[in-house]
Amino acid sequence: MARKKGLRLRRSIRAKVSHKKVGQVPGTMIYTGSKESKDICIEVFNYSSEKLEHQKLSEVGKAINITRSNDIAWWNVNGLNHIEALETIGKHYDLHPLVLEDIVNINHRPKIDEYEDFIFIILKMIYYDKDENLVSEQVALVLGSDYVISFQEAEGDVFDEVRQRLINTKGRVRFMHSDYLLYALIDSIVDHYFVVIETLGDKIVDLENILFEGDVRQSLVQDIQALKREVLRVRRAIFPVRELVNKIEKYENDLITDKSKLYYRDIYDHVIQVTEHVEIYREMISGLMDMHMNALSNRMNEVMKVLTVMASIFIPLTFIAGIYGMNFENIPELKYPYAYFILWGVMLAIVIFMVIYFRRKKWL
Amino acid sequence: MARKKGLRLRRSIRAKVSHKKVGQVPGTMIYTGSKESKDICIEVFNYSSEKLEHQKLSEVGKAINITRSNDIAWWNVNGLNHIEALETIGKHYDLHPLVLEDIVNINHRPKIDEYEDFIFIILKMIYYDKDENLVSEQVALVLGSDYVISFQEAEGDVFDEVRQRLINTKGRVRFMHSDYLLYALIDSIVDHYFVVIETLGDKIVDLENILFEGDVRQSLVQDIQALKREVLRVRRAIFPVRELVNKIEKYENDLITDKSKLYYRDIYDHVIQVTEHVEIYREMISGLMDMHMNALSNRMNEVMKVLTVMASIFIPLTFIAGIYGMNFENIPELKYPYAYFILWGVMLAIVIFMVIYFRRKKWL
Amino acid sequence: MARKKGLRLRRSIRAKVSHKKVGQVPGTMIYTGSKESKDICIEVFNYSSEKLEHQKLSEVGKAINITRSNDIAWWNVNGLNHIEALETIGKHYDLHPLVLEDIVNINHRPKIDEYEDFIFIILKMIYYDKDENLVSEQVALVLGSDYVISFQEAEGDVFDEVRQRLINTKGRVRFMHSDYLLYALIDSIVDHYFVVIETLGDKIVDLENILFEGDVRQSLVQDIQALKREVLRVRRAIFPVRELVNKIEKYENDLITDKSKLYYRDIYDHVIQVTEHVEIYREMISGLMDMHMNALSNRMNEVMKVLTVMASIFIPLTFIAGIYGMNFENIPELKYPYAYFILWGVMLAIVIFMVIYFRRKKWL
Amino acid sequence: MARKKGLRLRRSIRAKVSHKKVGQVPGTMIYTGSKESKDICIEVFNYSSEKLEHQKLSEVGKAINITRSNDIAWWNVNGLNHIEALETIGKHYDLHPLVLEDIVNINHRPKIDEYEDFIFIILKMIYYDKDENLVSEQVALVLGSDYVISFQEAEGDVFDEVRQRLINTKGRVRFMHSDYLLYALIDSIVDHYFVVIETLGDKIVDLENILFEGDVRQSLVQDIQALKREVLRVRRAIFPVRELVNKIEKYENDLITDKSKLYYRDIYDHVIQVTEHVEIYREMISGLMDMHMNALSNRMNEVMKVLTVMASIFIPLTFIAGIYGMNFENIPELKYPYAYFILWGVMLAIVIFMVIYFRRKKWL
Amino acid sequence: MARKKGLRLRRSIRAKVSHKKVGQVPGTMIYTGSKESKDICIEVFNYSSEKLEHQKLSEVGKAINITRSNDIAWWNVNGLNHIEALETIGKHYDLHPLVLEDIVNINHRPKIDEYEDFIFIILKMIYYDKDENLVSEQVALVLGSDYVISFQEAEGDVFDEVRQRLINTKGRVRFMHSDYLLYALIDSIVDHYFVVIETLGDKIVDLENILFEGDVRQSLVQDIQALKREVLRVRRAIFPVRELVNKIEKYENDLITDKSKLYYRDIYDHVIQVTEHVEIYREMISGLMDMHMNALSNRMNEVMKVLTVMASIFIPLTFIAGIYGMNFENIPELKYPYAYFILWGVMLAIVIFMVIYFRRKKWL
Repeated sequence: MARKKGLRLRRSIRAKVSHKKVGQVPGTMIYTGSKESKDICIEVFNYSSEKLEHQKLSEVGKAINITRSNDIAWWNVNGLNHIEALETIGKHYDLHPLVLEDIVNINHRPKIDEYEDFIFIILKMIYYDKDENLVSEQVALVLGSDYVISFQEAEGDVFDEVRQRLINTKGRVRFMHSDYLLYALIDSIVDHYFVVIETLGDKIVDLENILFEGDVRQSLVQDIQALKREVLRVRRAIFPVRELVNKIEKYENDLITDKSKLYYRDIYDHVIQVTEHVEIYREMISGLMDMHMNALSNRMNEVMKVLTVMASIFIPLTFIAGIYGMNFENIPELKYPYAYFILWGVMLAIVIFMVIYFRRKKWL
Repeated sequence: MARKKGLRLRRSIRAKVSHKKVGQVPGTMIYTGSKESKDICIEVFNYSSEKLEHQKLSEVGKAINITRSNDIAWWNVNGLNHIEALETIGKHYDLHPLVLEDIVNINHRPKIDEYEDFIFIILKMIYYDKDENLVSEQVALVLGSDYVISFQEAEGDVFDEVRQRLINTKGRVRFMHSDYLLYALIDSIVDHYFVVIETLGDKIVDLENILFEGDVRQSLVQDIQALKREVLRVRRAIFPVRELVNKIEKYENDLITDKSKLYYRDIYDHVIQVTEHVEIYREMISGLMDMHMNALSNRMNEVMKVLTVMASIFIPLTFIAGIYGMNFENIPELKYPYAYFILWGVMLAIVIFMVIYFRRKKWL
Repeated sequence: MARKKGLRLRRSIRAKVSHKKVGQVPGTMIYTGSKESKDICIEVFNYSSEKLEHQKLSEVGKAINITRSNDIAWWNVNGLNHIEALETIGKHYDLHPLVLEDIVNINHRPKIDEYEDFIFIILKMIYYDKDENLVSEQVALVLGSDYVISFQEAEGDVFDEVRQRLINTKGRVRFMHSDYLLYALIDSIVDHYFVVIETLGDKIVDLENILFEGDVRQSLVQDIQALKREVLRVRRAIFPVRELVNKIEKYENDLITDKSKLYYRDIYDHVIQVTEHVEIYREMISGLMDMHMNALSNRMNEVMKVLTVMASIFIPLTFIAGIYGMNFENIPELKYPYAYFILWGVMLAIVIFMVIYFRRKKWL
Repeated sequence: MARKKGLRLRRSIRAKVSHKKVGQVPGTMIYTGSKESKDICIEVFNYSSEKLEHQKLSEVGKAINITRSNDIAWWNVNGLNHIEALETIGKHYDLHPLVLEDIVNINHRPKIDEYEDFIFIILKMIYYDKDENLVSEQVALVLGSDYVISFQEAEGDVFDEVRQRLINTKGRVRFMHSDYLLYALIDSIVDHYFVVIETLGDKIVDLENILFEGDVRQSLVQDIQALKREVLRVRRAIFPVRELVNKIEKYENDLITDKSKLYYRDIYDHVIQVTEHVEIYREMISGLMDMHMNALSNRMNEVMKVLTVMASIFIPLTFIAGIYGMNFENIPELKYPYAYFILWGVMLAIVIFMVIYFRRKKWL
Repeated sequence: MARKKGLRLRRSIRAKVSHKKVGQVPGTMIYTGSKESKDICIEVFNYSSEKLEHQKLSEVGKAINITRSNDIAWWNVNGLNHIEALETIGKHYDLHPLVLEDIVNINHRPKIDEYEDFIFIILKMIYYDKDENLVSEQVALVLGSDYVISFQEAEGDVFDEVRQRLINTKGRVRFMHSDYLLYALIDSIVDHYFVVIETLGDKIVDLENILFEGDVRQSLVQDIQALKREVLRVRRAIFPVRELVNKIEKYENDLITDKSKLYYRDIYDHVIQVTEHVEIYREMISGLMDMHMNALSNRMNEVMKVLTVMASIFIPLTFIAGIYGMNFENIPELKYPYAYFILWGVMLAIVIFMVIYFRRKKWL
C-alpha cells in the first residue's frame, strides 16, 4: 500500500506536458487537465455595500446579459474543458489570448502578470484528499477595476467562507473595492497552506518516532522519499507566491489601492511563515535519512557483536574438545580419572573470562 | 527521559495553526496560545525626566482614564486571552485591526510594520525554563510618538532591569524619547539571546565530549537531533531580528530620532554576533553527527577485528585437532609416543606466528 | 550496452575545443562540428500579410538576388561547413566577424548579443534521437528589422510547425513584425525542452522503481551517474536561456516591439518551469544515490544476519558434539544407555531457544 | 595531550558573554577579558614630517597634557581593565559612550562605525602562541582628523614595524595624514593573517599525509575537528574585514583622503586573498574527513578479507577431518592403508584451489 | 610516483607568503618567486599600421632610449628578480609603487586596477608542463594610451601567435589601438585555459573508467583528491577573470575604446564557458568519490557473501560429522551398515538445498 502511494506521488512530480500542446500556435487554448465537467458553471456575485445578487448559471450568455449598476462583480467559473465558453468570457472582458491559454493550462507555476486593464494571477490550492493524497489544483484569478474572475477546474474550493462573508455582510469585503475581494480569495488559499503544512509536520514527526524506535525496514526509505517529494511539491506551489504578493505590494497601479496593500502585506507575512516551515521540514527530512542510515549501522553493529561473542566463546572451547578427541596413543591427560571434570572447570573459567571481557567492552 | 524531551522539542517545531483560525475574517482576534490568565494586567509607567508614576491595573478603563501631561507612557500588557480589553486598548490608541490580530496570534515570526502613526514590532523572548526546556514567548511592541505598549502572554519577563532604570533614573532612558524606551526593551530581549546561546554552546560541548569518549549509544543521535532543532528554533527567533533592526535604522520617520539610531546600530551588531554563533553551532552539530557515524564505524571495526583474530587463530588449530581425531587405521603419527606434545608445540608456534602477524597489522 | 552508453555520454560533457582553434586570429571562422554537408541549403521565406514566397536554394548568390518589397524575410541556413557561403551572407547582412565566428563554433553556450542593427542569439535544440541518446544542436539566430536568419548544422529541426503557420496564414505570425517570427522560432525550441524533460522524468522514475525493488547491481551506479550527466547537460543548455529571454524583455530597442514582449514573457515563464523541473530532477537523482547506498547497506545487513544466525546456532551444537567425542577414559555420560537421545533433546532445545531469541530480535 | 588541546579550542568557539553584562545600562563599560594589567600603559607618538616625539606613560593625565602643534598623534593604549582611565581618554577625544563600551568588550566582531568626527574600527589580531594555540586579540582603532588611538588588552603586538618606520622616517608614514597611519596599522594586522594562514595550511598538509598513510586512529577525527574549528575561528576574524575595508574605500569623508584609498584597496586585495585561502581550507578539511572515512572502510575491508580467507579455507578442511572422525562401524575408506595420505593430498588440493581463487579475486 | 605527485600538488595550494614580506613598508618590491634569471630580457615591439620594429634587449636603458614616433609600443619583460631594472621601467612609465610591488609578488590573485593614466591587470597563465604537472605563472599587464607592458617571471609564454600576427600584419592587431593588443594578449591566455580544461576533463574520464571497473585501490582516493585540487587551482586562476573582463567592458575610460569592447565581450563569453566547465568538473569529482565509496561497499558485500555462503554450508555439515564422532556407547545409527553412505546422501541434500537457497537470494 505504502509502496503504491509512493509511486503515485513520484509520478505526479514529473513535468507534465501533453504532447499535443508542443508546436501549437501560441495562444491556442488546450485544456491540459483531466476533469471533464458536463456543463460549465458560472457563479455570479454582483454586490455593493447596499445589496447583493447571487446566481448560479450554466450558460455564459446569461451571465454576460446580467445588468448591473455600480456594483462589483465576482465570477467564479468552474469547468475548464468548455473552451468556447471561456473564449466568450475572454472576449467579454477583453482578456489577452495568452491569458486564456494559461487559464486552461493547469500545469502552470504560480505567477502574476500585469496587463493594461487587469491583473492576472495563477495560484495553486493544495490540500490532502480523503485518501491522504496531496492534491494541487490551479486557480486563475483576474482582477479588473470592478470585477474579479476566478477560474477553477472543478467545483469544490476553499472560498466558501468568502461567500458567507459576502452574503452575510460580515467583515469589510462588501464595503471595499474589488482588490479587497481578490485579497480575500488569495487569503483563503494561503490560509489552507497552513493546514497542509501542519499535516506534513505530523507525518514527519510520526516517521521520526518510528525511526527512533530503531526500525530499519527498507520501506521506510520509500516513505522518507515520498515525504521529501510532498515537501518539494508544496514548496513549488508556495514559493513563487512570495514573490507574487511582493509584486502586488509594489504595483503602482490604480487596481490595487493603498488601503488594501496593508492586507496584502499580511498575506506576505503568512507566506513567509509557510515557506520557513517548508525549509525547516526539508532539513528535518534530510535528518530522517541520516537517522535511518544510523539505525542501519547500529543494527549491523548489534548483529556483528552477537556473532563475535558467540564465535569468540565457542570456537576456543570447540578447539579444546577437539584436542581430547584426538587418537594419539599417548595422551596422558586422558587417563586421569577426573580429567573430564577438570576440563569442564577449565571451560567454564574460559567462558566466565570471556563474558567479563565482553562486558567490559560493553558488547554484552 | 531524554527520549521524552526529544519528542516534546520536536513537536514544538511544527507549524502551529488552530484550525478555527483558518477561514476567519481578516482582523479577527483569536488568541492562539494556551496561557489563560484570570485578569488582564496592565502596568502603566508615565514619566518625564522630572517625575514618574507607576501603576498596576487590572482594568483597561482605569488605565485609559489616567491623565498625563507631557509625559511618555509605557503600557506593559499581560494576558492576551482578554480579547475585549485588548480591543479597547486598540481603539484608544487607534491600532489597525491587523495589528490586534497579530498581537494575539502568538505564532507570528518576528517582524516590523510601519503604520502612519506608529511602528509595530513582534519579537520573541527565548530562555531555558527550570526543566532546561527552550521556551519562546512572543512580545508585541507598539511605538507611538509619546508612548510604547508591550503585549505579553503572561507575567514574568526580561524587562525588570528597564523598570529599575526608569524608577531609579539610571542611564539615559528618562531623558530621551519613546524610541529610546523601545530600544531599551529590544536591547533587553536581545541581551538574553546571549544567555541562550551560551547554554546551547555548553550543551554542544558536553555532547561532543561524550562522543569523543567513543560512546555509540543510539540515544545520542536523538540528542544530536534534539540539539539541532533547538538551534533551528533559536535561529528562527533571532534571524528575522537582523532585518528588523536594519529597517529601523533606515526609517525616515519622526518616530525614530537620529540620536537613537546609533543605539539601534548597537543592537544590530549584537544580533549579527548572535546569528554568527548560531551558524557556527549548526556547523558544529553537523560535525557531531559525523563524529557519531565515525565512532560507530570504529566500533564495528573493533568488533570485526576481535572476531577475525579469534577465528583466524582457533579455526586452523581446530582443524589440526580434527585431523588427529580421524579414525583411519593407518595414521603413523598417532603411534609416536611424543607426538601429542610435539603437536602442542606446533600449535603454540602457529599461535605465536598469528599474534605477531596481527601485531604487525596493528589489529592487536 | 548500458556501460557503453554511459561512456559516450560522459565524453560528451567534456570541454570541446579543437586545438587548431587555440591561437587563431579572433574572428577566424572555423567549423568545430562534424556534420559535413555537401551543399549549403538556404530556405528563404519572403512574406507579408498578403503574400508569401518560399524557396529552397543551394547557392548563396541566388538567395541574395531575390528581390523583395516590403516583405519580411526568413532565411534558414543549413550546413555550417560552407565557410565561404556564410561569409557572403555575413557581408550581405553586414554581420560582425565575431558573430560569424560564433555561428560556426558549435560549442558555444546560449547567449544574446545586441549589435547596432541586429540582435544575435545562440540557442541549443535538445532532443533524444532514435537510440535514446541526448542530442544537442546549436541554432544561431539573427534578428534584423525586416529579417530573421537561422543557422543550423544540418537539416531537420523543430521549426516545421512555424513553416506551416507561415504557409497556411495560421496564427499571428504573418501579421506581425520580424520579432514575432523570432519569438515563434524560440518558442518552438523551448517547447521541445518539455519533451526532453518529460523523457528524463520517466527515466528517473524507472530507475527509482528498480532501486525500490532492492536491486544492488553495480551498473546501477553507472546508470545514476549517466542520468545525472544528462540532467547537467540539459541544464547547461536551458539555464542561460532564462537570462537571455529576460534580456530581450528589457531591451529598449526598436527591433523588439512592446507588443511582442508579452509573448517573450510567456517564453520566460516556460523556461522558468523547465529549469524548475531540472532542479527537482537534480535533487531526485541525488536521492537515487542515497537509495542505492541504503539498498547496499540493507543487503549487507541481511547477509550478516544469515551468517550470525547460522553460526550462533551451529557453533554451540558442534561444541557439544565435540565434548562427547573426547577420548577421556572416564566420561560417565557416555555409558548411560539413553544419553545419546537425551543429548539430541538438549540440542533441539538449544535450537528452539535460539530461534525464538532471533525471532524476538526480528532477525528471522 | 592532543585531546586536551582539542577541548580547549572547542571551548574558545563558544559565545562568550559575562552574565553580569546582561541587563546593564547601554554604554556601561565592562571589561570582558581576563588580562588584568597593574597599570595602564599609554604610548604616545607626536609627529610631523619634520620631528617626532615618543613617550611611554602610565597616567592618562600626563598624556592629555602633552602639548603638540600641527602634529599627528598616535596613542597606543594597553590595559583595558582601567575603565576610569579609558573614560578620561573618551572624554578628551569626545568618544561616544557606545564606542567606549565596545572597546572594553573584547568579544566584539570586526566592524567599522562612522561617527561625526571620527571613525571607529574593531579588528582581531590572530597568531599562534608558543604552545601552538591560536590566539585572537581584539584591537580597537579610532581615527580622528589628526590622531589615531589604538586600544589593546595587553602589551605585545604586531605594530613594531610601524613604530620603526615612524622613528626612522622610513616609507611614507611620516609624510602623510593620520589615515595613512591607520592604514599602516591595519596593514600590519592583515599581513599577520598570512602567517596564520600558512601555519594552518601546513597543519592540514601534515594531517593529510598521516591520513594518506592509512592511519585510522580515532584521535584523528578529533584533530580534524580541531582544525576545522581553527579555520572557523580564523574565518570569523577575517571575513568581516573584507566588508570593513570595502566601506572605508567608499566613504566620502574628509578623514579618508583619496590618496590613501589606493592603499586601502591594496589591503582589500590581501584580505580577499586570505579569505580565498580560508575557503579552500574548508573544502580541504571536509576532504580530510572523507579520506578518514574511506581509510576506515578500507581497513574494515581488509579485516573482513582475512577472516573470509581463513574461514573459507579451514572450515571445509575441518569438515572433512570431522567426517573421518565419525565412529560408524562401516566406513570403508578408514581401512585403506594409504587413505590418510591421500586425504592430505585432497586437502592440499583444496587449499591450492582456494588460494588461486582468492588470488584471482585480488583478495590475497 | 602518483603519491609523490599528489603531495607536490597539495603543497602548491597552500598560502604562499615569504615571511620576509610580512612587515615591510607597503610598496617594497620583493620578488616572491623562485625563477632567478641571470639577465632581464626586454622584448620591444614598436609598431603602427605601416611599420614594425622588433628588438630583444637585456638592458633597461637601451629600451628606454629607443625613439619612436606615433607608434604603439609593446614591452614584454622577462625576469622579475631584477628589481632595480623594474624600478627604472616603473619610473619611465610613471607606475605607482603598489603596482610595482604587485608585479613582483607572484602570488597575487587575478585583478584589475584602474589608475589615472593606465590600467593594471594581473592574470595567471596555466598549463600542464612535460611531467603533466599543472603550472600557473603570473602575468602582469599594464595598458597605457599608446603602450602595453607585460611582465613575466621567465621566458616561454603563450604570446607567440600574437607576435606572429604583429610581424605578419595578420588580423586587426596592427590597425587598432593599444587596447586591442591588450585584448589579443588576454585572449591568448584565456584560449589556453581551454587546453587545460580539456586535459582535466580527460583525466576525470580516465579515473571514472578505472572506478567503473570496480577498482578499489586506496591510491585512487589520493588521485581523486589530487584532481580535486587541480580543479580548485584552475578555478582560483580563472574565476576572478570573469569579473575582471566584466569591469573592462564597463569602464568609461579613454583607454578602452568602444570598438574593442565587443572583443572583450567575446573573452567574457569564453571565460564563462571555462568556469562553467570547472563547475561541472567539481560536481563530477564529487561523483567520483561517491563511486569509490560505492565500489568499496560493493567489494565488502561480496567478501561477506563468500564468507556467509561458506560458513552456512559447512558449519551444519561439520556439526553432523561431530555428532557421529561422539563416543556414546549406545548410538544405534553407528551400527547400521549403510549409515555412512546414507549420511553422505543427507549431507549432499543439505548442500544442494543451501545452494538453491543462496541462488534464489542472488548471493551466488
